[in-house]
Amino acid sequence: MDFALDVVVLAAGKGTRMKSRWPKVLQRLGGQPLLAHVLQQAAQLQARQAVVVTGHEAEQVEAALADWGAALPLALRCVRQQPQLGTGHAVQQALPLLPDDGVTLVLSGDVPLTEAATLRALLALCAGQQLALLTLRLPDPSGYGRIERAADGSVQAIVEHKDASAAQLAIDEIYSGIMAAPTRLLRPWLAQLDNRNAQGEYYLTDVVRHARAAGCPVQAHRIDDALQVAGVNSPAQLAELERALQRRHAEHLMAQGVRLADPARLDVRGRLHCGQDVEIDINCVFEGEVHLGDGVRIGANCVIAQARIAAGAQILPFSHIDGQRDPVQVGAGAQVGPFARLRPGTRLGPEVHIGNFVEVKNSTLAAGAKANHLAYLGDATVGERVNYGAGSITANYDGAAKHRSVIEADVHVGSNCVLVAPITLGAGGTIGAGSTLTKSTPPGALTVARGKQISLPGWQRPKKGKG
Amino acid sequence: MDFALDVVVLAAGKGTRMKSRWPKVLQRLGGQPLLAHVLQQAAQLQARQAVVVTGHEAEQVEAALADWGAALPLALRCVRQQPQLGTGHAVQQALPLLPDDGVTLVLSGDVPLTEAATLRALLALCAGQQLALLTLRLPDPSGYGRIERAADGSVQAIVEHKDASAAQLAIDEIYSGIMAAPTRLLRPWLAQLDNRNAQGEYYLTDVVRHARAAGCPVQAHRIDDALQVAGVNSPAQLAELERALQRRHAEHLMAQGVRLADPARLDVRGRLHCGQDVEIDINCVFEGEVHLGDGVRIGANCVIAQARIAAGAQILPFSHIDGQRDPVQVGAGAQVGPFARLRPGTRLGPEVHIGNFVEVKNSTLAAGAKANHLAYLGDATVGERVNYGAGSITANYDGAAKHRSVIEADVHVGSNCVLVAPITLGAGGTIGAGSTLTKSTPPGALTVARGKQISLPGWQRPKKGKG
Amino acid sequence: MDFALDVVVLAAGKGTRMKSRWPKVLQRLGGQPLLAHVLQQAAQLQARQAVVVTGHEAEQVEAALADWGAALPLALRCVRQQPQLGTGHAVQQALPLLPDDGVTLVLSGDVPLTEAATLRALLALCAGQQLALLTLRLPDPSGYGRIERAADGSVQAIVEHKDASAAQLAIDEIYSGIMAAPTRLLRPWLAQLDNRNAQGEYYLTDVVRHARAAGCPVQAHRIDDALQVAGVNSPAQLAELERALQRRHAEHLMAQGVRLADPARLDVRGRLHCGQDVEIDINCVFEGEVHLGDGVRIGANCVIAQARIAAGAQILPFSHIDGQRDPVQVGAGAQVGPFARLRPGTRLGPEVHIGNFVEVKNSTLAAGAKANHLAYLGDATVGERVNYGAGSITANYDGAAKHRSVIEADVHVGSNCVLVAPITLGAGGTIGAGSTLTKSTPPGALTVARGKQISLPGWQRPKKGKG
Repeated sequence: MDFALDVVVLAAGKGTRMKSRWPKVLQRLGGQPLLAHVLQQAAQLQARQAVVVTGHEAEQVEAALADWGAALPLALRCVRQQPQLGTGHAVQQALPLLPDDGVTLVLSGDVPLTEAATLRALLALCAGQQLALLTLRLPDPSGYGRIERAADGSVQAIVEHKDASAAQLAIDEIYSGIMAAPTRLLRPWLAQLDNRNAQGEYYLTDVVRHARAAGCPVQAHRIDDALQVAGVNSPAQLAELERALQRRHAEHLMAQGVRLADPARLDVRGRLHCGQDVEIDINCVFEGEVHLGDGVRIGANCVIAQARIAAGAQILPFSHIDGQRDPVQVGAGAQVGPFARLRPGTRLGPEVHIGNFVEVKNSTLAAGAKANHLAYLGDATVGERVNYGAGSITANYDGAAKHRSVIEADVHVGSNCVLVAPITLGAGGTIGAGSTLTKSTPPGALTVARGKQISLPGWQRPKKGKG
Repeated sequence: MDFALDVVVLAAGKGTRMKSRWPKVLQRLGGQPLLAHVLQQAAQLQARQAVVVTGHEAEQVEAALADWGAALPLALRCVRQQPQLGTGHAVQQALPLLPDDGVTLVLSGDVPLTEAATLRALLALCAGQQLALLTLRLPDPSGYGRIERAADGSVQAIVEHKDASAAQLAIDEIYSGIMAAPTRLLRPWLAQLDNRNAQGEYYLTDVVRHARAAGCPVQAHRIDDALQVAGVNSPAQLAELERALQRRHAEHLMAQGVRLADPARLDVRGRLHCGQDVEIDINCVFEGEVHLGDGVRIGANCVIAQARIAAGAQILPFSHIDGQRDPVQVGAGAQVGPFARLRPGTRLGPEVHIGNFVEVKNSTLAAGAKANHLAYLGDATVGERVNYGAGSITANYDGAAKHRSVIEADVHVGSNCVLVAPITLGAGGTIGAGSTLTKSTPPGALTVARGKQISLPGWQRPKKGKG
Repeated sequence: MDFALDVVVLAAGKGTRMKSRWPKVLQRLGGQPLLAHVLQQAAQLQARQAVVVTGHEAEQVEAALADWGAALPLALRCVRQQPQLGTGHAVQQALPLLPDDGVTLVLSGDVPLTEAATLRALLALCAGQQLALLTLRLPDPSGYGRIERAADGSVQAIVEHKDASAAQLAIDEIYSGIMAAPTRLLRPWLAQLDNRNAQGEYYLTDVVRHARAAGCPVQAHRIDDALQVAGVNSPAQLAELERALQRRHAEHLMAQGVRLADPARLDVRGRLHCGQDVEIDINCVFEGEVHLGDGVRIGANCVIAQARIAAGAQILPFSHIDGQRDPVQVGAGAQVGPFARLRPGTRLGPEVHIGNFVEVKNSTLAAGAKANHLAYLGDATVGERVNYGAGSITANYDGAAKHRSVIEADVHVGSNCVLVAPITLGAGGTIGAGSTLTKSTPPGALTVARGKQISLPGWQRPKKGKG
């Protein structure tokens, strides 16, 4: 594009049908606020800025933008629309922030799934010269304003359903709510808007009339995919778009070669990057940035957030990997699960095994280390080939602070041990089962800390009472 | 309604295609027997009584009614139809129990999803004066008897498919199996039924003819929603209605503002009550009465039965909450899971944390108590701010009886401890990791019970044999 | 069939769109390679042999056949097609292995869901005398070659889309890629193939022309079910067929009387054998051979491989049963889960209970034994009525070899015990909680091995630092 782009995002609506304390544009789709989806479209178009028009619950929207908006590669500004007097009035509030040398693209904060290619086509049609509308062909356009086209294909008018003639009612092309116009032209058209209508509102659609009156051609870029311009007004619509978004993710992944056991049972809330020959079983959820290397297999019912899983690793069913705040790394050829939980700061080296009912947090396990059964490793540094026994626990918390456990290479920790941190188990040592260790252990030694085994013959267990 | 209502439920059928040892009307839909759904319809209509006509496997049906039927706000009686000589014959068996001053509504025990509003409309049409049929418009009515209407809209006849003229075959309105009639009129019509037909059965539909012959108008209330009158004859049909019922639940919840990650992956078997801003992730199952307070979030793959979860609590993925027999309570702002199991009699106070691989049964945890990792709390009373260490266990069972563990406020239980109940840990005490406690501990003290740590240098671990 | 059958399977294709390192015919559907599905069809038809024509990645295909093909009740041979010059050329490679006294059936290695009944009907049409084509009626046949029939119903020609007249374009019958012909006739037709076409390939479809030229009637067996002849060219198509296969499994099971909570959330990868009144909740996965006895109930989200579960047993949600290599057995009336993991070699007797966060591997539990909470049983032999305490572990691995633990009848093992194997706990004994046992224990005795409990009054726990 050879013109600067300013995006205006309408985000002042109330969203009554959501029945939520949260503003509609902050409701989440694919793990992200609706508004973030729209702003990402703006960022993809390399917009010079996005001006978000807030209104209902403006403080919440502005606070959210201040929170996560800064991460977007996009200059963001907010203006308030108080009171809310219609879509045209909303864009009027943004006008003071829009330089005359650019093109203004008007998006809705509750329309999250428009594709960048569609918007680029719309902007190309605008070409910095004309008013361009994004329109939709709809099998049943009843109730919507129709796009009446002139003989040359340009838009003559948007005709309201109730004002439409029989011939106009037969038109199946409707306006989507998205338009682009040169700002220098849009400014006077907006100034001419009036609110002499049943709702007493200033409608953005009226600029079509003013553009034509000013001799400016109005063009329409028509699409057939209703999802791209679908808005969210209720939890049901939100769920419908969620499924549509997930279908997109699934199709995109399969086109890259990923094998999905059931495309209808995959949830990607963020970005899932896959190598070759990745297989994902049913009912998995991915959140944030997740990387799966070549040949990685994810078993049924896994939940994986912020993680990098190297080639050939296998995640067995019912595994929960959560690297929020401190991404989890799983090494090549490692095996995790079933029923494993990897928490933030877990770094597993190659060929590490983490088995059932094992929790790992903020710990590093070197190549070939194993914790196969019912165990907890927290704030631990585990050396190569360590075998960490069933039921063993790092007591990393003394009630006030967390301390580290260091288990050097080739240590064998028996079952049901406790390592009271801070502690270091010297390389090659063996810890006898059932030992609670409060002091570091020397390398190569057998260390035990347990009571003596005594049997009392003929002992009577309590009996279940009669009656 | 200004007349008394008696409901007759036909529940004598065999259900051969279910291939089950259980009678068809006891097969479960949404966690409840089909027959219970139908009787709840009767209860919603405030029927004076319901008369259940049993036949095949009558003992099982009657035993089931004696078991859970008593909980229904409805007078229940059973009559047996032996042998089964048709639907008209079935209603004849109920007649002795039906007073002449009421209206009789005939329902089928295997048609579970009729809505109360539909039945109310049918009863309004009957008005204590006329025979009223519930009919259905079906896109493809082939094979079904057609509803022939007179010029005044009343029903002239039900015409069997094989007897129908071309004009009659074009009718797309069929009889649903549900009807209502003033009992004083129904009685003589039923008396006139005969079994001179191919099956040798007494058909209830023949009352239409006798009503018209007696000069009584026959009206029809027509619906378009086939699910409301769909019967269950096979596991496939049962599964289809199950999905329809679940779709209804999902739509109902979303209309209230509940956010569902996937409406097609929600199962409600009982009643789910939700506050504002409740979010439910994929693949959750709710059983019995479950209450979710404002802002509660349920993670993916949770199974929750009979529980009350207070505002702001968060249930993480893979949690199993089972309050059958003794409902579970989760306090405001509490956090449960992932991989937590709360069993009957669990009461969690505000801000309690129950983490991964932790089981709680018949225990009370006061505000701020935590059991974050691999632990068992059974028959325990846990005070405020207690920290219950990883791998710790209440040994509540001595082989004969269960005993209680009392952990007073601010106690810190180390990792891998065992509390041999009955036992009381005094307030503010600290229990050293790896301790097995058989006696109560004083408040404020450090208590340990563990072996001395000894290292044997140069110890040789068994080596893997060669070849 | 009164003639010998030889099956030729075309398995030389590249499958570029799969974007996989693996040949397309080895991609898995329902847990099995596509090629295995096709070869099972051949086996069901009691073919004398199957000749697999390999090409792209021939070594991998041949190695796979050498691996699992031997288990098929079918003589298997491979021929290579190098280079790949078309489908006709592929069958030419197989010809030297096809005796003249048989019928040749040509199948595609990437068309997995053809039903045996369909192929039998095709072979009946061939009757050892004629060329028989399997054809498909398709609502939209655009792009496909059409089947032109003569007045007598026989096939006159396959007309390419681009060569078709308007009348021919209206034909909705297309060729499926599957044909059968007497080998003695097929041989000269194949010899006459040429590659004078746009692709420069030898097309198998050209045998229709040569057959008719030789006066041999060409017949078509037409089906309407596109799934039966659908090929796999991309992960999306593979996923689509996976769902179709699973729908088939679900319908088949429901027709037998199995109650499925959601037929769309069932995955059977192998064979699932069910008794009467089996109930399967949502989202379960079955792999390999799994047998479920009468009245077995499988809870939500279970993954079960290679297992035999006896009548009345109940598997609670989130259970993972994996009998790969050594099938798992669950006894009558046993209860497993939730969150239980049964690994290879687990044999549970009647009424055994395995509870949450319990792992069992290569162990036998006799009738009525219980391990209800957070425990590991590996390489153990457990007697009748044993109660195995929460948190208890068999230390079966000394770092070099695995050893057995024997727990005789009626032993009560307390919580958080460790049994250091090899070890035998004598019948009726009691093991005190928290004991680590390194020696066998006498029958009937109370055995303990724990430290003395000492309290230090007035102990100060570390305090959280300020600022």
